[in-house]
Amino acid sequence: MALAHKGLAVETIPWRFTDKAALAFSGQERVPVIRDGDMVVSDSWTIAQYLEGTYPDRPSLFGGATGLAHARFVNAWADSVMMGGIARLILRDLLDVVAPQDHEYFRESREARFGTTLEAVQAGRETRVAEFRASLLPVRLVLGKQIWLGGEAPSYADYIVFGSLQWPRCVSRFELLQRDDPISHWRERMLDLFDGLARRAPRVA
Amino acid sequence: MALAHKGLAVETIPWRFTDKAALAFSGQERVPVIRDGDMVVSDSWTIAQYLEGTYPDRPSLFGGATGLAHARFVNAWADSVMMGGIARLILRDLLDVVAPQDHEYFRESREARFGTTLEAVQAGRETRVAEFRASLLPVRLVLGKQIWLGGEAPSYADYIVFGSLQWPRCVSRFELLQRDDPISHWRERMLDLFDGLARRAPRVA
Repeated sequence: MALAHKGLAVETIPWRFTDKAALAFSGQERVPVIRDGDMVVSDSWTIAQYLEGTYPDRPSLFGGATGLAHARFVNAWADSVMMGGIARLILRDLLDVVAPQDHEYFRESREARFGTTLEAVQAGRETRVAEFRASLLPVRLVLGKQIWLGGEAPSYADYIVFGSLQWPRCVSRFELLQRDDPISHWRERMLDLFDGLARRAPRVA
Repeated sequence: MALAHKGLAVETIPWRFTDKAALAFSGQERVPVIRDGDMVVSDSWTIAQYLEGTYPDRPSLFGGATGLAHARFVNAWADSVMMGGIARLILRDLLDVVAPQDHEYFRESREARFGTTLEAVQAGRETRVAEFRASLLPVRLVLGKQIWLGGEAPSYADYIVFGSLQWPRCVSRFELLQRDDPISHWRERMLDLFDGLARRAPRVA
């Protein structure tokens, strides 16, 4: 979404959890990674900062230094509240869609991280989802005041929160949001951006 | 803090909960209210926007339209997560410091809002405070990356979160933060701003 916001043409490469060799060129083992000419940059936040600094004449992702500083709060909130909350609702579902050769890696690495089985992490989600939805109240309050988290136009703050909702949308059928939630309406608008770029992302569940 | 950020001279007027008559000039019944020449503005967020629009040549509170849009998320988060969390830890303490003529109003209005007694709201805080501290993780994560929530200088985002911690500091001796919390260190820096403006606020508990 950040690359599309900057109007940059992109070639994407499908990748699987255990395909660490494919990332060796980046000197680390995690996605996302971009290669832009001779530059290799990893980590979503670092990539967004790189794009803003390298393409300052394209539409801004942050709206200046203070906008970037404030977006870091949104990023920290999404990392800590959203990502953990979502993982505890859909973690087991992922096992059904990762490649067979990644099953063992996925189960072992995630069970070590959560300290219990994938099944136990996800158990009881039908009741726990209400608490997750309540935790999104700050987003809901902002969207009651302005159409995008970035104000009158989408900013990187929108892409942070949207991205956190996009991966569960692609790998699980579990409904994280209620249809009449203002966040659902905003997500539909996000899915429409850039000629429906995110709407075309494969849903494998 | 926002007025000091703009370098504006201010005269403050002490006020009590039930002194609604003193706010009649503003056409509503809540604080904060400012009078600036012929203008009367209430509500912290609205006041901050007013100051930014009216004094654009003074130091910016928001750093532009996107910075303001992103600050609204911090504001929504503080309103929903911090204010409620803090009230549930110190609500009963306030009764010890409000004026005698306000006791009945304070108890009745707050017990109606929380649906139980002041004592029940606050009960068990010694154990519950850990959960409150954990809920501040997004602030902690940001302060691990930059010195102020506003980046290299304090912004209205800092004043939002700081203000949420300032009222309990003034009316209760209950320690919301641990001393070695990065948020405590940042709060000390906030208390030092503007020649110790906030440090001079009376602590009545």
